[in-house]
Amino acid sequence: MTQEHTTTLRVRYAEVDQMGFVHHSRYLAYFEIARTEYLRESGYTYREFEQLGLYLVVAKVFCKYKYPIRYDEVIHIKTQVTGISPAKIEHAYEIWNETNTVLHAQAQTTLACVDTQGHIQRIPDFLQNLVEDGASGLNEQ
Amino acid sequence: MTQEHTTTLRVRYAEVDQMGFVHHSRYLAYFEIARTEYLRESGYTYREFEQLGLYLVVAKVFCKYKYPIRYDEVIHIKTQVTGISPAKIEHAYEIWNETNTVLHAQAQTTLACVDTQGHIQRIPDFLQNLVEDGASGLNEQ
Amino acid sequence: MTQEHTTTLRVRYAEVDQMGFVHHSRYLAYFEIARTEYLRESGYTYREFEQLGLYLVVAKVFCKYKYPIRYDEVIHIKTQVTGISPAKIEHAYEIWNETNTVLHAQAQTTLACVDTQGHIQRIPDFLQNLVEDGASGLNEQ
Amino acid sequence: MTQEHTTTLRVRYAEVDQMGFVHHSRYLAYFEIARTEYLRESGYTYREFEQLGLYLVVAKVFCKYKYPIRYDEVIHIKTQVTGISPAKIEHAYEIWNETNTVLHAQAQTTLACVDTQGHIQRIPDFLQNLVEDGASGLNEQ
Repeated sequence: MTQEHTTTLRVRYAEVDQMGFVHHSRYLAYFEIARTEYLRESGYTYREFEQLGLYLVVAKVFCKYKYPIRYDEVIHIKTQVTGISPAKIEHAYEIWNETNTVLHAQAQTTLACVDTQGHIQRIPDFLQNLVEDGASGLNEQ
Repeated sequence: MTQEHTTTLRVRYAEVDQMGFVHHSRYLAYFEIARTEYLRESGYTYREFEQLGLYLVVAKVFCKYKYPIRYDEVIHIKTQVTGISPAKIEHAYEIWNETNTVLHAQAQTTLACVDTQGHIQRIPDFLQNLVEDGASGLNEQ
Repeated sequence: MTQEHTTTLRVRYAEVDQMGFVHHSRYLAYFEIARTEYLRESGYTYREFEQLGLYLVVAKVFCKYKYPIRYDEVIHIKTQVTGISPAKIEHAYEIWNETNTVLHAQAQTTLACVDTQGHIQRIPDFLQNLVEDGASGLNEQ
Repeated sequence: MTQEHTTTLRVRYAEVDQMGFVHHSRYLAYFEIARTEYLRESGYTYREFEQLGLYLVVAKVFCKYKYPIRYDEVIHIKTQVTGISPAKIEHAYEIWNETNTVLHAQAQTTLACVDTQGHIQRIPDFLQNLVEDGASGLNEQ
């Protein structure tokens, strides 16, 4: 897993509110897309994860909105895994404008691994290994 | 089942686009709320329906948008069952403003009954009976 | 303004994801509904606020998800104003189940007042007064 | 303007309901993305269009849902302009799976051109010309 992943997307009309700004709740869906694409880049998909009967649910989110995002703008979502424990994964995110000159938002999430009954489960080894490979890559640089 | 059901709701901020109007895709969610409340009024819930392993999926929708709806407005959604066959239910809808003087939209949907595999199923008797009771009520008037 | 406001709503089908839970981003829209209803109870509407050319934008949000919410459940959103400064308002929220026995989520938001250009504005006196009336009510109890 | 435009996208987690299918209301947002990308390909953006004080609003929509779409699937949305008059544009859409072997949905929309007051306006010449160029291209083939 690389140290940081960037997902690029264009703001859709249906995501913008009557101020002309992306509605603040939509950022959370953007972060979800970003961490899903990050995982995909490592050769896994969240869909396969769910097929094992496991879910990553959001346990905590913090977001700081710094500068509004408008319809049709292209944004970059930069995502890092900032921590992992047997039951939790932490990500940090930044949303930048197309030219990487304006920081729109900063956020952190904590995900927990649960089964179909909602009971906390150990994060599967392959995911732990992925994250640790990334972390050791960090140390080597 | 009564001949017609009215669901009243207030437009939420997150449902409005940058024109200041309810986004046209949201109307379909309003109709879904309306037909669900219609069923609830008859003593059943769609949640129970899904617990039987059955789903009502939208097979067809037609909507005519006549006058925009704005943030914070109160609207009335009037719903009728206009047809039922062993595998399909048809509804008609009208959205009116708070004072019932402006017609915002008119729509029809066709729902099909499917199982968890997506295979077409016969609509359960209790639902057919509900609808027919409504229809015979109509004839008697 | 009362010390605390409770908004009650029923979870809509379109708000639930394929785990069968309300998607975590939807909670932010629920909090928005709750603080809007809180204001309405005081005799003002956010719509009027925007007609003055002022907007309350979310500057920060923190949410802790404790127990999932399912389709068709009735929830209570309890909202308090926890702080006000010339440019910012802070709210705290709790989401409880229908019988007030399960705490689904706890959250805080910070709102900033801006004009149509996005420039920070002083919060209008009427809103400051509303909040302070509530706070003095608190001291007297 | 080319005769047909294809937009390709991947289904997001937040777009799927508890059946595990893309919610039927989301298709309308997909069609909006498709016709916006179609316009962009011709060298115009809908954002510029709105900056002229003009809006294209959906006046009518018809959609036939043929086969459900699931989370993480890649879909192709094929869009054509099927008619234009001084005040209206008609589009037809098909949604196909990644390998173009399954037809998920077929739809038509009618858009009207309005000003900021919601009054019907003549569709600007540049858009009419774009469409007619496409149509004459068709005749020449």
